[in-house]
Amino acid sequence: MEEKNGLIIVHTGNGKGKTTAALGLAIRAWGDGLRVLILQFIKGGWKYGEIETIKKLGEMDGRIELRRLGKGFQRKTDDKTEHIEAAREALKAAGEAFESGNYDLIILDEINYAVKFELISIEDVKELLAKRPAELHVVLTGRDASPELIDMADLVTEMKLIKHPYQKGIKAQKGIEF
Amino acid sequence: MEEKNGLIIVHTGNGKGKTTAALGLAIRAWGDGLRVLILQFIKGGWKYGEIETIKKLGEMDGRIELRRLGKGFQRKTDDKTEHIEAAREALKAAGEAFESGNYDLIILDEINYAVKFELISIEDVKELLAKRPAELHVVLTGRDASPELIDMADLVTEMKLIKHPYQKGIKAQKGIEF
Repeated sequence: MEEKNGLIIVHTGNGKGKTTAALGLAIRAWGDGLRVLILQFIKGGWKYGEIETIKKLGEMDGRIELRRLGKGFQRKTDDKTEHIEAAREALKAAGEAFESGNYDLIILDEINYAVKFELISIEDVKELLAKRPAELHVVLTGRDASPELIDMADLVTEMKLIKHPYQKGIKAQKGIEF
Repeated sequence: MEEKNGLIIVHTGNGKGKTTAALGLAIRAWGDGLRVLILQFIKGGWKYGEIETIKKLGEMDGRIELRRLGKGFQRKTDDKTEHIEAAREALKAAGEAFESGNYDLIILDEINYAVKFELISIEDVKELLAKRPAELHVVLTGRDASPELIDMADLVTEMKLIKHPYQKGIKAQKGIEF
């Protein structure tokens, strides 16, 4: 494989913080002058607060952008066709962004979920990653990351649920959990 | 124990993303209109990019603030006195912030580390948490969180290292890892 300095970073596991840590990375990179794109593969995963902040930062200097592609969470009984189309659209957008050279960091949020539910294949993801410029950092989030992806990745963190407030009967908190 | 809606959130484990996910939470909360304070118990843990972003957001409307307390990473051979004093100062600042009622979310970054290295005790942390207003959310980060803290917490996530670029001989990347 050719030499690439850009990191492939994976956030997986059943715990909180996969997307939140990706957001933190985006913020850090933006603060450091990098150009950041966040592509959502599943709509609805992001919270109002983070969407607002990204928008405000983007308005400052246009170096950070969130594109909400993909469809909302599907039920197992849903017809998959629409979801597959939406995920393929997100994949296409990712490919174009990779090839554009306009970004230093691209976050493929919940792409692991799209693979898990067979909206796209791990081969699609591999093809996509093969296209990336040498310096581009890519973050792929979502539980149940494919072993093949973990194999390709440089940095993999598993966010593991140890304890959840629902277990204590506490309601979800605005600004924190949604 | 009295009824509190504020969550005690712990990010622990040996992986990346403990502080980064706390930063993501801070950003989300800020975007949602909450008032956020980040207190560093160990200086030097934060990256240039995230410090810059927090500063810029804070300049917008003053609802987010990062206070860099504590001392830099200590060596085992260092005289601990200075570090203990710095950590106690951070603890005092936290207590005042808790009691002020001026915040909706307070992040005690690397406080677990300060406990682990016996700069402060878990009893100090318990006392601090007991002081919090009912609605205040608190995030405590750092590896090796004390079992007593995990016991008190509402939401605990372990960030677990699965794979690290150093293992592949790749250098740390600016804007991403520092």
